[in-house]
Amino acid sequence: MTIPWSEAAPPSFGDVLAARERIARHVHRTPIMTSRSLNELTSAELVFKCENLQRSGAFKVRGAFNAVLGLGERQASRGVATHSSGNHGAALAMAAAERGISAYVVVPESAVRSKRDAIVRWHANIIDCAPTLASRESTLAGVLEETGAHYVPPFDDPRVIAGQGTAALELLEDAGDLDQLWVPVGGGGLASGSAIVVAAQYPKSSVIAAEPANADDAWRSMEAGTRQPMNSPDTIADGLQTSLSPLTFRILRDHEVRVVLASEKAIRRAQYLIMDRMKLVVEPSAAVPLAAMLEDPDRVRGQSVGVILSGGNADGGVVPT
Amino acid sequence: MTIPWSEAAPPSFGDVLAARERIARHVHRTPIMTSRSLNELTSAELVFKCENLQRSGAFKVRGAFNAVLGLGERQASRGVATHSSGNHGAALAMAAAERGISAYVVVPESAVRSKRDAIVRWHANIIDCAPTLASRESTLAGVLEETGAHYVPPFDDPRVIAGQGTAALELLEDAGDLDQLWVPVGGGGLASGSAIVVAAQYPKSSVIAAEPANADDAWRSMEAGTRQPMNSPDTIADGLQTSLSPLTFRILRDHEVRVVLASEKAIRRAQYLIMDRMKLVVEPSAAVPLAAMLEDPDRVRGQSVGVILSGGNADGGVVPT
Repeated sequence: MTIPWSEAAPPSFGDVLAARERIARHVHRTPIMTSRSLNELTSAELVFKCENLQRSGAFKVRGAFNAVLGLGERQASRGVATHSSGNHGAALAMAAAERGISAYVVVPESAVRSKRDAIVRWHANIIDCAPTLASRESTLAGVLEETGAHYVPPFDDPRVIAGQGTAALELLEDAGDLDQLWVPVGGGGLASGSAIVVAAQYPKSSVIAAEPANADDAWRSMEAGTRQPMNSPDTIADGLQTSLSPLTFRILRDHEVRVVLASEKAIRRAQYLIMDRMKLVVEPSAAVPLAAMLEDPDRVRGQSVGVILSGGNADGGVVPT
Repeated sequence: MTIPWSEAAPPSFGDVLAARERIARHVHRTPIMTSRSLNELTSAELVFKCENLQRSGAFKVRGAFNAVLGLGERQASRGVATHSSGNHGAALAMAAAERGISAYVVVPESAVRSKRDAIVRWHANIIDCAPTLASRESTLAGVLEETGAHYVPPFDDPRVIAGQGTAALELLEDAGDLDQLWVPVGGGGLASGSAIVVAAQYPKSSVIAAEPANADDAWRSMEAGTRQPMNSPDTIADGLQTSLSPLTFRILRDHEVRVVLASEKAIRRAQYLIMDRMKLVVEPSAAVPLAAMLEDPDRVRGQSVGVILSGGNADGGVVPT
């Protein structure tokens, strides 16, 4: 059994503003930071939005809180459920706990330890599954049937997308006009929300979505003009192994978001540089935008560039390359 | 040949205020951060001062800039010199570069890579030596004789101590009244500067200096009431292997600073927890206060506690314990 894709309309900029109001008491307004050393390396003016310092260690709480707080009482009373390799699962667990409802999270056995630990910390019910999309979906379908819980997908949902857009909104408010806004892209929730904000408020800026070359479905989809399936992703950026949904693909295509690729080697180097120069722990997925810049500095030379450091839930053992 | 200890008087609180003015354009006012998760673990209200996000990755730039900017023109023209296993050397290199004078840094071969790299980045002249105090001192004496450079010690200097005190000043301004202020102690510059600030402005707070049990000269000195030598330190807290000087010992004793110890195991765990829960890269030395709290939570239970995260220059490879 598979879970059908959402057929909802994309969220509007107004939905992002509403999300901001709804989640304000529950999420941090994370700081922005700069690094002279990384500016020199890229010949650009970089402004980093530190969603690694966000509650639960990733931007995902924004969408999760917006979805959970937006549910009616009766729907909420049966709890919420999702499948997630990590950050969305922890975010949903936290949002459910703060609303006082149950959360059920289907977690592939391959999930990194720190992400699994975070889900446990918020007292969600963890249901293990094999590390395949088919297993995730069939296990989740069983959970939904058994519990009557409401499914909050990791990205394929207008409320989730609107919530993720609040990170870009804050970054642009704090940093002022930027030439470019870089985000990592996996399922496309953060990239979609960012594109909606930029189009509405900062139309001179462009959104650039960075993706591991070894998990390049978004890049291929934009090239082909139709949504392409993910082919066995093989990347350390464990948060970016999912493919776009019809909804997120449509938003990225309609907003002409550019997708660029980064090699595994560059991702590891960028993760190390952020830790070494900025003293911030980031997970590999969060380093993908900087990795893509370093691989082709012409992309950013002389530009003012916002970068969303999407999360910090890395297992230990980062070593210099 | 050995370098004589300073015979200068301790700096006053006014010297700390003057230092703040002198260095303001050169150092960051670093943020404070809190962590719900670490509050739960310690049953205290912790406020962390993020000197790991300071320029050069450690509080040491405060003292180095205060010393370098306080030199007269003629004295400065011959450059500055020091011996350092890392952070002070990088800080002095940066301060000298910004004043446009030469820096000579004697570095033991055992220095961690990221610290040596930072010294190189600021174009200091690096002079290698064996990893013993005798070798550091005789090598430095040769450098001073040859160059006529002014010696800026890592801690045994009123201007350096006054500069380090500015970190505590900012923390107490930003966090409001605190029951306790915790700092790591090696040579005692940060602890001394903090004690002077607290005594002058926040007399109800107490300063607690945390030291590796495997490098416990400060603890033994306070117990004995006379300065005790360091006995072959064996700790991952590479910044805390030096012993107190007569000047810093006198300041800590006169201010009744309490010294507490942390095991190597607790230091490693605390370093991991700060990275895992706060997403901040810290070096082992910076984790020693939290380590000492976790080993004996009665020390902080129910208290409001400031903690100076002294630096972030850790080599890669931190793994969970």
